[in-house]
Amino acid sequence: MLTYDLTARGRTPIYEYLYHCLRSDILSGKLASGEKLPGKRALAEHLGVSVITVEAAYSQLEAEGCVEARPRRGFYVCAGAMPAVAASQGCPPAIRDGERKWKLDLRSNSVDASLFPVGVWAKLTRRVLSEDPDALLTSVPHAGLMELREAIAGYLRGYKGMAVSPEQIVVGAGAEFLYLLLAQLFSGAAFALEDPGYPKIRQAYTGSGAVCTPVGLDAQGVRLDELRACGAAVLHISPAHQYPTGLVTPLARRQELLSWARSTGGYIIEDDYDSELGFAPRPLPTLSSIDAAGRVIYVSSFSQTISPGMRAGYLVLPERLLGEWSHRLGFYSCAVPSLEQHVLARFIAGGYYERHLSRLRKACRDRRSAVLSAFARSGFAGRVEISEPEVGLHFLMQIKTKASDAELRLRAEKLGLRLGFMSDCAFDPRRAREHVLVINYAALSGGRLSEAVELLEQVLT
Amino acid sequence: MLTYDLTARGRTPIYEYLYHCLRSDILSGKLASGEKLPGKRALAEHLGVSVITVEAAYSQLEAEGCVEARPRRGFYVCAGAMPAVAASQGCPPAIRDGERKWKLDLRSNSVDASLFPVGVWAKLTRRVLSEDPDALLTSVPHAGLMELREAIAGYLRGYKGMAVSPEQIVVGAGAEFLYLLLAQLFSGAAFALEDPGYPKIRQAYTGSGAVCTPVGLDAQGVRLDELRACGAAVLHISPAHQYPTGLVTPLARRQELLSWARSTGGYIIEDDYDSELGFAPRPLPTLSSIDAAGRVIYVSSFSQTISPGMRAGYLVLPERLLGEWSHRLGFYSCAVPSLEQHVLARFIAGGYYERHLSRLRKACRDRRSAVLSAFARSGFAGRVEISEPEVGLHFLMQIKTKASDAELRLRAEKLGLRLGFMSDCAFDPRRAREHVLVINYAALSGGRLSEAVELLEQVLT
Repeated sequence: MLTYDLTARGRTPIYEYLYHCLRSDILSGKLASGEKLPGKRALAEHLGVSVITVEAAYSQLEAEGCVEARPRRGFYVCAGAMPAVAASQGCPPAIRDGERKWKLDLRSNSVDASLFPVGVWAKLTRRVLSEDPDALLTSVPHAGLMELREAIAGYLRGYKGMAVSPEQIVVGAGAEFLYLLLAQLFSGAAFALEDPGYPKIRQAYTGSGAVCTPVGLDAQGVRLDELRACGAAVLHISPAHQYPTGLVTPLARRQELLSWARSTGGYIIEDDYDSELGFAPRPLPTLSSIDAAGRVIYVSSFSQTISPGMRAGYLVLPERLLGEWSHRLGFYSCAVPSLEQHVLARFIAGGYYERHLSRLRKACRDRRSAVLSAFARSGFAGRVEISEPEVGLHFLMQIKTKASDAELRLRAEKLGLRLGFMSDCAFDPRRAREHVLVINYAALSGGRLSEAVELLEQVLT
Repeated sequence: MLTYDLTARGRTPIYEYLYHCLRSDILSGKLASGEKLPGKRALAEHLGVSVITVEAAYSQLEAEGCVEARPRRGFYVCAGAMPAVAASQGCPPAIRDGERKWKLDLRSNSVDASLFPVGVWAKLTRRVLSEDPDALLTSVPHAGLMELREAIAGYLRGYKGMAVSPEQIVVGAGAEFLYLLLAQLFSGAAFALEDPGYPKIRQAYTGSGAVCTPVGLDAQGVRLDELRACGAAVLHISPAHQYPTGLVTPLARRQELLSWARSTGGYIIEDDYDSELGFAPRPLPTLSSIDAAGRVIYVSSFSQTISPGMRAGYLVLPERLLGEWSHRLGFYSCAVPSLEQHVLARFIAGGYYERHLSRLRKACRDRRSAVLSAFARSGFAGRVEISEPEVGLHFLMQIKTKASDAELRLRAEKLGLRLGFMSDCAFDPRRAREHVLVINYAALSGGRLSEAVELLEQVLT
């Protein structure tokens, strides 16, 4: 019987992962043309998943022409699905698959592109190209263009009260890329990660060979007893706005975490992925800014606030790690193009970034109110309970339902709606909490909001 | 006595690595202010390095004010070098160190920026921003913008005779970044690397946790007996132009390598880093294009041909790996900014790239002749022997000298000249060949060439 390691699926839903495994075996010829797939019930039992999961995987393969259903006999691998023809006809190649076009994607946490001052960016780009054409060609230092690092340091000082020097800043091609470098910096160290948490973080670290242990959360954030017990040397957290729970870690817990790091000689990676979009009047100081012992690495990016298409992020290293970083990682070229670094430096230093953020915050606040009130008037209002957020671009919606998350997802996907569930974010499956949707509302304006309400009504009622 | 693992230094020269280790211990306070460093001779003996190496490390620390020499007593850690003040005064922070400004850098393999048609790029950028402002903001699929993948596939078809579909292409933020992803794709597999070889390749793979074994070269490229004996599953090679030896692997050896991959179920990563700059009239077919079994991943980048400041590279996956790639790595966002991908797609599809390449090839050929004849007329002509290259931006220069590579390097660095040695590229130190300079000549035009000759005369005679 076909056997796949379903624990390797990362954040991919089980049915989708199973579909990919089967598809890969069909394309590689391991499942030969004309071969019969196992019965749905039998395979479900064998893999320890529900029949509906296998059904969903088989249907998708059928829809793509990789397998065909023969009435009362089962599913058979199609001839046209063989590797030789895969590129030109038959199944569309796998790399494209992940990029299904959704009617509506509530899992994406992109902000609305229309809010960004494209004109300003274009103007600055033109200006850099005319004033300093070499900006395009000169390679920048490993840690990034000094002007950009200075601009970021200035922004952090003015906006977050963080007294950092430009030399502590490393610019990289988005937060994910910086995670890979951090995994190399701390290679051999055990990582503790929030559970539930943002799945890409775990994927990037485990993909880089790091051993990761889940640490549960209480109302204040990461549980110290579990953290101490797991013996990790590096803790990755988002104290300003935990994903997906939305928890904000209060000052007392922040101090406890710092003293854990100090006493164990450990490090904390503070992932400040969206605190720019906080609505609270006075955000708490970052861990990095109250860390006297030099045990915090601060990570942030421009993906949420400018655009996910602008792959630029940065981290702030404590002084004590500068030498180590340079030894171990200084040989890598800076992965952000020079031109973009020049433009971004001017965008921040010229005050455009702060002005954009303030407009963006207002827009998100308005959008959030509109979404919350539309949901309150919707047909599913009686079946859900919403946790209202103080910060960020998502909120949690608990659903009263008997359907499993897999069933709800399947219902939604048939309508072209992509949903994110809290259970997708579980690291330890025993902790997975069902029936909680993570709604990323940033893109829900105007017509898309009424569409979202309609689609959710169909799925939830 | 101070003990450092000098094998961890990667391609950093020993003295520079030792300097970094000491500096890091001084900044972290492990070596306290006022403490005496070990005697040069004693430390050299303890670490198994030459006295001149320790001397060079101590001098650099002294020049930076991290240590002070007290006559007839030795070197002492300065008070001003303590961590608290490191950011603002005293030693410049370590991340900057790697970026020493050289009078002349013969190790850099950048092409001359002045050859790139900046005006065309600027025009295309303006056009994208005005015709399609969303290009800046919309995030592209994991494997890259489809238009760019199509343009690259078209280029490979027309220029290299490679029949690849755009779906096989993955765009990434430079070759180094793609190495990191390949290490994750093949995690757990043993890698075989050319010895000598490009040090960053080894650094990136070992940094990612891969086990790497050196495989020696004969006149045709990688030795098959060593390859078979080492039991690696993945082989990373540059058959078009091996770095640093300049070897071109002939067709028969290419076939043997492919049959190794086929029979062992292994994979070959074909790193075609600079074959665009070949001068031979008919380049050999790439391994990828004669690989019927789907066991070759082709990697190339635009760093050499456009600019190292333009972080964009790509790989071509065989069909059989598309599914696996998508499962394991499809969650990463594409690390190249959208805007740049749009501009690059137009640059290639509009024929600008090929025109630029043909100009670039001519310029490199001219420059190479000029460099070779200037060297032939130089004061050091009688002491060196040059292997003339058919391809690429560097050549080898064997020196008749009694001085060690470390001594030559030190002499050069005192003059502000950065040299690259073949011994820097050795993986297994027992194979390190001394007295061979790797001369990257691409930047040596006009005044820089005469400066290079002058400086080399001082170092070599």
